Amino acid sequence: MTSVPFNWKLLEKAELNQSFDLETALNHLKFNADGLIPAIAQQYDTHEVVMMAWMNLDAIKETLKTQRVCYWSRSRQAYWRKGESSGQIQHLKELRIDCDGDTLLLLVDQIGPACHTGRRSCFYAVADQDELRVNSEPLISPEALYGK
Amino acid sequence: MTSVPFNWKLLEKAELNQSFDLETALNHLKFNADGLIPAIAQQYDTHEVVMMAWMNLDAIKETLKTQRVCYWSRSRQAYWRKGESSGQIQHLKELRIDCDGDTLLLLVDQIGPACHTGRRSCFYAVADQDELRVNSEPLISPEALYGK
Repeated sequence: MTSVPFNWKLLEKAELNQSFDLETALNHLKFNADGLIPAIAQQYDTHEVVMMAWMNLDAIKETLKTQRVCYWSRSRQAYWRKGESSGQIQHLKELRIDCDGDTLLLLVDQIGPACHTGRRSCFYAVADQDELRVNSEPLISPEALYGK
Repeated sequence: MTSVPFNWKLLEKAELNQSFDLETALNHLKFNADGLIPAIAQQYDTHEVVMMAWMNLDAIKETLKTQRVCYWSRSRQAYWRKGESSGQIQHLKELRIDCDGDTLLLLVDQIGPACHTGRRSCFYAVADQDELRVNSEPLISPEALYGK
């Protein structure tokens, strides 16, 4: 078995459509001290950024294998299979890694709201002059999402 | 001077276009142990996610005041006024905060490439079956961006 060298500097110089072993690249991801990496979720067709959460290496591998997004919940200290309690799952369309291997961009098909408030996107608070303004309403009430 | 209460739970229940004092909200942002918060930069019109970097409170305030994006560089441990050495500046169009106050979304007008490799976006490496594939070429060479 041949060993293909990999580092993020090599990737910089790569030509269009040049490819590297994915498993090797994943093993070069730069996780933080808690073993986590930020993952941005963007709706693949409308390009709306719906949320950001965190993944560990196993969550990334599960997501790639199942094509359903699995995060690591820092508050619960547990795997967080998006939609497992609300039904609002995220189908993975594409996973991208940034230039220095410390952030992920997930192109997803988000069923219903991504936000626990019932809004489509978690980014619903907008800085507007000296105020923070709410720019959207829930599609579904949190009570309906999570039960009473 | 009246004091308006603020917390992220109050925001959840807010109605469309309800607003809160921005300065108060910024003081409730959840920074990490290094005093930083992740900031996703998205091109405001095409909706392409071009990069993610980190900000401290002063970088956020400077960005809102000047409407030019200023990050905190973790590698250089210094303010990073995007484009100060490359000329590829980011004009701020809108700053959004997520539902629990621990991530920012910046809608920007990115002049030229956002990525230090000269590519438009830092997210140019795509997981494709068992390979990591380069999906774009530099618009400008890094040498031209940063000088020799």
